[in-house]
Amino acid sequence: MRVDLNADLGESFGPWPMGADGALLDIITSANIACGFHAGDPDVMAAAMAQAARNGVGIGAHPGLPDLQGFGRRRMEISLAAARNLTAYQLGAAQAMARAAGGQVRHLKLHGALANMAAEDETLATACYEGALAVDPDIIIMVISGTAQERAARALNARMACEIFADRAYTEDGLLMDRRQPGAVLHDPDEMAARILAMLRAGAIITAQGTHLPARIDTICLHGDGPSAVAAAQKLRDTLQDAGVTLAQFDGARG
Amino acid sequence: MRVDLNADLGESFGPWPMGADGALLDIITSANIACGFHAGDPDVMAAAMAQAARNGVGIGAHPGLPDLQGFGRRRMEISLAAARNLTAYQLGAAQAMARAAGGQVRHLKLHGALANMAAEDETLATACYEGALAVDPDIIIMVISGTAQERAARALNARMACEIFADRAYTEDGLLMDRRQPGAVLHDPDEMAARILAMLRAGAIITAQGTHLPARIDTICLHGDGPSAVAAAQKLRDTLQDAGVTLAQFDGARG
Amino acid sequence: MRVDLNADLGESFGPWPMGADGALLDIITSANIACGFHAGDPDVMAAAMAQAARNGVGIGAHPGLPDLQGFGRRRMEISLAAARNLTAYQLGAAQAMARAAGGQVRHLKLHGALANMAAEDETLATACYEGALAVDPDIIIMVISGTAQERAARALNARMACEIFADRAYTEDGLLMDRRQPGAVLHDPDEMAARILAMLRAGAIITAQGTHLPARIDTICLHGDGPSAVAAAQKLRDTLQDAGVTLAQFDGARG
Amino acid sequence: MRVDLNADLGESFGPWPMGADGALLDIITSANIACGFHAGDPDVMAAAMAQAARNGVGIGAHPGLPDLQGFGRRRMEISLAAARNLTAYQLGAAQAMARAAGGQVRHLKLHGALANMAAEDETLATACYEGALAVDPDIIIMVISGTAQERAARALNARMACEIFADRAYTEDGLLMDRRQPGAVLHDPDEMAARILAMLRAGAIITAQGTHLPARIDTICLHGDGPSAVAAAQKLRDTLQDAGVTLAQFDGARG
Repeated sequence: MRVDLNADLGESFGPWPMGADGALLDIITSANIACGFHAGDPDVMAAAMAQAARNGVGIGAHPGLPDLQGFGRRRMEISLAAARNLTAYQLGAAQAMARAAGGQVRHLKLHGALANMAAEDETLATACYEGALAVDPDIIIMVISGTAQERAARALNARMACEIFADRAYTEDGLLMDRRQPGAVLHDPDEMAARILAMLRAGAIITAQGTHLPARIDTICLHGDGPSAVAAAQKLRDTLQDAGVTLAQFDGARG
Repeated sequence: MRVDLNADLGESFGPWPMGADGALLDIITSANIACGFHAGDPDVMAAAMAQAARNGVGIGAHPGLPDLQGFGRRRMEISLAAARNLTAYQLGAAQAMARAAGGQVRHLKLHGALANMAAEDETLATACYEGALAVDPDIIIMVISGTAQERAARALNARMACEIFADRAYTEDGLLMDRRQPGAVLHDPDEMAARILAMLRAGAIITAQGTHLPARIDTICLHGDGPSAVAAAQKLRDTLQDAGVTLAQFDGARG
Repeated sequence: MRVDLNADLGESFGPWPMGADGALLDIITSANIACGFHAGDPDVMAAAMAQAARNGVGIGAHPGLPDLQGFGRRRMEISLAAARNLTAYQLGAAQAMARAAGGQVRHLKLHGALANMAAEDETLATACYEGALAVDPDIIIMVISGTAQERAARALNARMACEIFADRAYTEDGLLMDRRQPGAVLHDPDEMAARILAMLRAGAIITAQGTHLPARIDTICLHGDGPSAVAAAQKLRDTLQDAGVTLAQFDGARG
Repeated sequence: MRVDLNADLGESFGPWPMGADGALLDIITSANIACGFHAGDPDVMAAAMAQAARNGVGIGAHPGLPDLQGFGRRRMEISLAAARNLTAYQLGAAQAMARAAGGQVRHLKLHGALANMAAEDETLATACYEGALAVDPDIIIMVISGTAQERAARALNARMACEIFADRAYTEDGLLMDRRQPGAVLHDPDEMAARILAMLRAGAIITAQGTHLPARIDTICLHGDGPSAVAAAQKLRDTLQDAGVTLAQFDGARG
């Protein structure tokens, strides 16, 4: 068994720090680095790229909506052309900053509201991914397993990495349970680790009710906000390794 | 005799158009395309890149200071690290948008206040160009002939293109005469053409007083603001061609 | 019979001009001035405020979503608190720029997507208007007649001005007909004038099918984009005056 | 003896917190609240204004250069008209947010690079203060004692408050000693308190060499970055009170 661990990085902006980049880099195998639209700026990106390159962590572009104040979490009405162009623009910026730091962008993962909209709307996801593939046909598209994101990446025959969440319960449809429902968000690292392990063994998303939904699982999304999140991530990593899971970057096989 | 003609393109933003991109593309051989910091946005860039690629015009990244309201014309205190990073970021964005449009970025030219500061400050110019070369070691740096920009590009052994201005008088130091001095700005296309022709023949910048300052001349900067500017640019192009000058992209020989 | 004519002003940004502010100021009696979030900047606002004050035109704050690139026309997910705060902020900025120009903000009209969302969602409209009234309890809220905007302003017992559109057909529900339907947008100034005159006489919105929907009509929205729009606005003004309609600022009676 | 204690507040932006607003509000008597150009956004301002109003702390507008990434600390070439307009705009925004929170803006203090430039350039300081006074002729201008800021405010016959720094050594010219010089920045709260006390008693700035330069001292600038800064500020407050100094908002007498 083998899986990748990913987390968001480089989410500071100007004078405002955010996140625990240093601690996360010792845990994850792939980093999604903000590209300046919802967070990050050229200086923040340069630092994050250098850190990631130095740690041998897989570098990903993490494009978002042009909304710093809202951290890219507020849905916006974006035309398909705009989606294509803002994805391409941010990927290019990330490629340049990675190269200048001695690294290279391997994958792309959409951020925040753009990711949520693309998880529901295959047309929008396709536009974003077309923008990325027009810049680099070999880029690995990281998608939320079982969503319109995955369908779009498969239809484009793109290299891809399917992602599940360590700390979220799944509905019978294979979607994330609404955060407001009881049990929707997991907090106990042992429980997270056990659940992830079960899913990896099953090759399936296991819903809150226990149903197995066959799924491709290439990477696990970790969150690094707050010291307890970092500790949980570390715990998850340790438990997976103890269970014999190899933690390594996904290979990005086509869908 | 052979020379390149360059002009700025893609300077619209969101709902606000600017410039005569279409008309200029029939005149110039290289375009400097704004990268989103002082003008341009991903959609504007996509359109400009597609136009330039379609016309076979050489594509350049035209990075500027992060100041939309001031159009990158207001000097800002920028650290060397920030200069390096904002140049790399914008070049990367331009590369991506060019690639997505079927083109490729060949050269880089600094914009506005960043260009003016780099023309006076070799350290700053070096930082900007290092940022660009770290992204693409073969990029052609377009420099204002005879300035700190040129010295920086030479010291970095970069591929380069030396630029003179069609519509500006030169001082005995080889610098642009202050715009407020009489005769500093030329308006007559015949006069511009004759002067440029003389400079190309002499392989020298010819000052307002007639002194010849030997200079490498690879490209001529045209301005496209206003219908008379476009007409003057067209007239200059015609006159140069009638005099047997080949108008073509610079080869970007190292300094 | 008496009515106000309003139009948007001050929609330039930095180096990018927009609109025909000068021509419009001779036609309208109230101006909606952009406040820097979707268009306008402090310098543009200063100029627009000075022009409006000089012409004795009623000054309005015209707040929009924080989206320069999209000109405030892209819907965004905005919390009620954010709606309240961004309206208050922009109103305050407008008040200051008006005062510095010797004028005073009399009314407030929402712009673009924010206006469209507030026309459908009374809760959102209420939040915006509460933000404005917390800054100035006597501000006149300009609302699109018959929409959730009007209901919100009435429920707040705010001073208000009800607006109809010169160039748009109305459905049987009193809403604007979808632009894509035939006849939805009027282009002939004579037709516009006749229709507006009929509505003023009837004290009702007259739908495309001829139904009269009783409505309060305080102001008519004109558009100034393009020379034909300005000519149409001028024609409308002349026709209304010839028919004995007094063109003057609304009094802002409470709903 | 009586003096005011001031500090910057509301310097968060979007998802990024900054500063120890809550702790500072129990120490200071006047707050300088960022206005959205270098920090702060309408939501952050609303929260800071509400906190300040609740604590009975004097509310100040703290306008800065339009440079979020650089936190308004990078010098920019700003025309006098732009300086006037950006000060008026931000003051108006602050007034509105204060009013909506049940408070009122009493004073204005320039931020960062704009403050530094205005401390050296009386023409620029005059432009900024004219912008503020055009909006509110009774606003109290907080100036760095002994600089071009103070001269500009006096020449405008503005209400003013003269500020000295708790933690910085002064040169024989009455200016702040360069941070890179030994002893330029004080860290020991006891030493700060003793020095401030001596200055208040002397009615003079006391230079590093001990010279007394007569000066008007209305307020002391505290810094809140970092837990030790807050502790030092608290210590300073306690020591001043123990020595019989009344801590209260300045009255803003004209110069």
